[in-house]
Amino acid sequence: MIRITLPDGAVREYENAVSALDVAKSISEGLARKVLVAEVNGEVWDASRMIEKDATLKLLMWDDPAGKNTFWHSSAHLLAEAVESLFPGVKFWVGPALDRQFYYDMDLGGRQMTEEDLRKLEVKMTELAKQNNTYNRKFVSKDDALKYFEEKGDEYKLDLLQNLKDGEITFYTQGGFTDLCRGPHIPNTGFIKAIKLTNIAGAYWKGDEKNKVLTRIYGVTFPSQKELDEHLLMLEEAKKRDHRKLGKELGIYTMDDDVGPGLILWMPNGTVVIEQLEKLAKETEDDGGYKRVVTPHIAKESMYLTSGHLPYYADSMYPPMELEGEKYYLKSMNCPHHHKIFAAEPKSYRDLPYRIAEYGTVYRYEQSGELFGLMRVRCLHMNDAHIYCSKEQFESEFRAVNDMYLKYFKIFGIGKYVMRLSLHSPDKLGKKYVNEPELWKETEDMVRSVLIESKIPYVEVQDEAAFYGPKIDVQIYSVIGREFTLATNQVDFSQGRSFKLQYITADNHTETPLIIHRAPLGTHERFIGFLLEHYAGKFPAWLAPIQVKLLPISDKFLPYAQSILQKLKKADIRAEVDDRPEKIGKKIRETELMKIPYMLVVGEKEMNEGTVSIRRQGKGDTGARLAEDFIKDLVDEVKERRES
Amino acid sequence: MIRITLPDGAVREYENAVSALDVAKSISEGLARKVLVAEVNGEVWDASRMIEKDATLKLLMWDDPAGKNTFWHSSAHLLAEAVESLFPGVKFWVGPALDRQFYYDMDLGGRQMTEEDLRKLEVKMTELAKQNNTYNRKFVSKDDALKYFEEKGDEYKLDLLQNLKDGEITFYTQGGFTDLCRGPHIPNTGFIKAIKLTNIAGAYWKGDEKNKVLTRIYGVTFPSQKELDEHLLMLEEAKKRDHRKLGKELGIYTMDDDVGPGLILWMPNGTVVIEQLEKLAKETEDDGGYKRVVTPHIAKESMYLTSGHLPYYADSMYPPMELEGEKYYLKSMNCPHHHKIFAAEPKSYRDLPYRIAEYGTVYRYEQSGELFGLMRVRCLHMNDAHIYCSKEQFESEFRAVNDMYLKYFKIFGIGKYVMRLSLHSPDKLGKKYVNEPELWKETEDMVRSVLIESKIPYVEVQDEAAFYGPKIDVQIYSVIGREFTLATNQVDFSQGRSFKLQYITADNHTETPLIIHRAPLGTHERFIGFLLEHYAGKFPAWLAPIQVKLLPISDKFLPYAQSILQKLKKADIRAEVDDRPEKIGKKIRETELMKIPYMLVVGEKEMNEGTVSIRRQGKGDTGARLAEDFIKDLVDEVKERRES
Repeated sequence: MIRITLPDGAVREYENAVSALDVAKSISEGLARKVLVAEVNGEVWDASRMIEKDATLKLLMWDDPAGKNTFWHSSAHLLAEAVESLFPGVKFWVGPALDRQFYYDMDLGGRQMTEEDLRKLEVKMTELAKQNNTYNRKFVSKDDALKYFEEKGDEYKLDLLQNLKDGEITFYTQGGFTDLCRGPHIPNTGFIKAIKLTNIAGAYWKGDEKNKVLTRIYGVTFPSQKELDEHLLMLEEAKKRDHRKLGKELGIYTMDDDVGPGLILWMPNGTVVIEQLEKLAKETEDDGGYKRVVTPHIAKESMYLTSGHLPYYADSMYPPMELEGEKYYLKSMNCPHHHKIFAAEPKSYRDLPYRIAEYGTVYRYEQSGELFGLMRVRCLHMNDAHIYCSKEQFESEFRAVNDMYLKYFKIFGIGKYVMRLSLHSPDKLGKKYVNEPELWKETEDMVRSVLIESKIPYVEVQDEAAFYGPKIDVQIYSVIGREFTLATNQVDFSQGRSFKLQYITADNHTETPLIIHRAPLGTHERFIGFLLEHYAGKFPAWLAPIQVKLLPISDKFLPYAQSILQKLKKADIRAEVDDRPEKIGKKIRETELMKIPYMLVVGEKEMNEGTVSIRRQGKGDTGARLAEDFIKDLVDEVKERRES
Repeated sequence: MIRITLPDGAVREYENAVSALDVAKSISEGLARKVLVAEVNGEVWDASRMIEKDATLKLLMWDDPAGKNTFWHSSAHLLAEAVESLFPGVKFWVGPALDRQFYYDMDLGGRQMTEEDLRKLEVKMTELAKQNNTYNRKFVSKDDALKYFEEKGDEYKLDLLQNLKDGEITFYTQGGFTDLCRGPHIPNTGFIKAIKLTNIAGAYWKGDEKNKVLTRIYGVTFPSQKELDEHLLMLEEAKKRDHRKLGKELGIYTMDDDVGPGLILWMPNGTVVIEQLEKLAKETEDDGGYKRVVTPHIAKESMYLTSGHLPYYADSMYPPMELEGEKYYLKSMNCPHHHKIFAAEPKSYRDLPYRIAEYGTVYRYEQSGELFGLMRVRCLHMNDAHIYCSKEQFESEFRAVNDMYLKYFKIFGIGKYVMRLSLHSPDKLGKKYVNEPELWKETEDMVRSVLIESKIPYVEVQDEAAFYGPKIDVQIYSVIGREFTLATNQVDFSQGRSFKLQYITADNHTETPLIIHRAPLGTHERFIGFLLEHYAGKFPAWLAPIQVKLLPISDKFLPYAQSILQKLKKADIRAEVDDRPEKIGKKIRETELMKIPYMLVVGEKEMNEGTVSIRRQGKGDTGARLAEDFIKDLVDEVKERRES
């Protein structure tokens, strides 16, 4: 008798071993038709793999990230099958699923792949998919596996086999194509209904510049044509909203060869956005009882040995500067500096929770090839803070941090978000995780209950916590549905001890505080990159670098425009007059391109009546109003950080 | 016939060579009694040295910096004479004048100098001074000089002689003491009426840690006992106002061995001061039409080769980090990054003046021994900005910068300040100075006329300009009379060209802009150090980290205190409640120590009447007022940045 426990706690019993598909069928045929893969005792398995013992089971479909991931990985195999069929003799390296797409790296033996080839491959893949071929898993001995790929003449797969242990090697076969693969895969190729190969690129074998360049084919697939169309539309829209394009057009940021790759120079318009974000963060953090600090960008090696960044994190740091026999490093995190501020003055329970915040600038080494606009950079301005608290204070502090996230989501109109709660694994205590079983349980329970109470959508992930405590990764979606990982929110039982941080309790003994690391707005770089896409560059008035542009119809109305400008400035509105001797039509068109929230056209009528004719970004002419009334409403709109 | 031209343009004629003293006597005996030294054709000479040819002459007295400097240098010789008389066999290194004091480094041959010895030396110096011994200058051949010090057995002076050329060596003798010295000196020891030896310290010979430690005796002298007394009183007061002591007591800043020397960690209270200063700067700069930018802290070697920082300034920079075959440097100035922002978008005359500002953080290497609290550090937050303008715009831009300085002086109650205008030297054009004779003349004339019109006290210094243009160093005095060099304000014709900065003029050709470098508030580090001394830690309300402390007489009045706290917070006042179960007397005493501007004592009476009893920092109890009235007035005080 095998007992299968489902996520809702229901237990189903079977006489013999069953597959996840069997279980699904025993519930309903309709359900079974949707199952892509299954989570068995926390591990993702082929839906057709037999479950031999009692187990927990979760059936995974398209709406589950692991479902999509498997779908795309299986699509990579389908691509390889099509390639082998159309271009025999191609050798294959690896073909993983990525976030929203997949690729396969291959050695075409000198052949050039063309756009036309991609179209042919799409047709071939569609034809193969329709055959409903199952993905068959088979254990293979290392000898047999080596023999197979020796005969096939694929040195890349032979290289992969080097690092695999005999007894753990599996092959997957669909149709006429067999690949070395750990799996899992979807049940059969028939699920793949819509296919688009998006791109061809060169990629160094194993990412090493010294190696041969392989051909990488990117693609994306969906269970329906409708979903593929929507996805391609979203990509099209994302292209229009490309933060690199908008960043340049709107004077947000620039980069320079003499400064260096991944190092952003924030132009005046970008700096306004930065300052408005910092203002918001400071107000929010002031209300939350945070204090602010300012710390240097470098520290001695000894600090990073204490924190554990060295030697483990050295590859992600800039190399050291040697001075007076000491090594200095650019900081890649603000925590150690903040810990030093906590430690600078003796603390008692009366000082806790001690919350210190800083828009700290950190430097991280990313490989040149990984750099991407504002999304992957080497200098990051982080909305950082550390909360030092007692165990008793932890839950309410954590809730307050969570509420802060929600407040921000609302301000920025972020309707879709998911928190990913990474937990420890009890069998790795003392190894991968600090050996504090009770603290793990307590904090994980508290974090979970806060998430549930706040009704925040979240997923739990086993065995992905930080060394020092559970963590939450926050994923948000822009209005066009693209996903961004912005921020993490971490609990830390460990660094307090490494840095010997202490406070005196009410009953007069010393205790190490718990630490919460949090950065709800992430970094300026990534967050502004996100906002550029999210708003398509049309910032709400409170964030807009220039909030109002005054457009006099002719020079005659320049003095009137200037008088309105003075009133706007007095009300702390960022405004400019377009005083060029240009036609009003041209002025309007050019101001539209700069995506300024309000254009005020002023001429004879407006001057005589003390009004301004308002053109709202994206809404066109909205009529004339008394200048004073317009200013008053705009001040409110800015103050309340309204979206429009 | 020798024609002597005096500073007022008057010309006096003499039959034969005359000394400055002779000239003074020919004007008045009273004047002659005050002359310490003279400036002859721009060089400082002994007042007794004969002038053989027509010359310009300025008689320097105690009120002139060069007069004081010479006075203290001669006092160092008097100290050496006293040492030699009381402790025969001592060997001497050098004895220069410093800012407001002098020292002499000597090898006591193993003897320890005590405080008692200093008192004995003071008595001896006074005795020698009263002898009115003249300082006699004598040319000595190198051979004779070497012979003299070989016989005396002073290897330090022999070392000095190594680097001197025969024919340029002079000895000075007063009383029984002879020293190798370039001079000049005051006429005789009788001018030195009041003497204080202040300190004994060890100092490496030639400042090199590998060398022997010499004994350094510090002293200060004055032409009257009254001036010495005032000076010692000022030092006493400065000690109480020591920014390092106050900085710690008030939680302004800290340093940490693991971070590194000269790297300031700004604590929460210090960060409030920083933020208020930045707020002031931003408001002022916004009004002045500046835009803000944010730039990284590092750049490639190529940028500093273009700017000329490398190789010339390399010793003052942190060593490079080597990454991907490139050298990266921490920036020691913000200019190059700002130039890159200017260059990032094409500019026309309509974009000028282009003013960009940043509280830029720069890193400079100062030797460990030079580091001093907030005054000499390695990480500096600079109130920086660069103005790119046409030649026609220069004068009004420069005036606006000057007005900004004056505005700041007023806000901070800085009553005494001097600007030091450093000019070029026409004979060094093309060598020490950019070869632009007309631009030099034009800009120097403009700068001078702005200074005169603004009625700003200033001194002109020849041949001390920057390579690229005239500069102004701003010296301010704290309320206790100590001098601080805060900021420079520089004109730059050169870097615009090095960085190929250009704009299109109205008549459609390209032109390189002039650049003004300016930093009126200097760096946070030095300015806050200055303010701590200037205010003795008693910041005016707008700058105070905590503006109001609420002191409930007992727990019973805590809710009332909390209700006032909420009102204060709503009015953006930084306030706290002292909710400890302590006696009110203790609470008041401890709050006094934190130098918080306002203490509000609340008890039965206050609660019933809706009032607060106000204790103003330094003024004690100033009576009860309605809470609302107090808050309203305080908000005004803060908004207007009033001193009290």
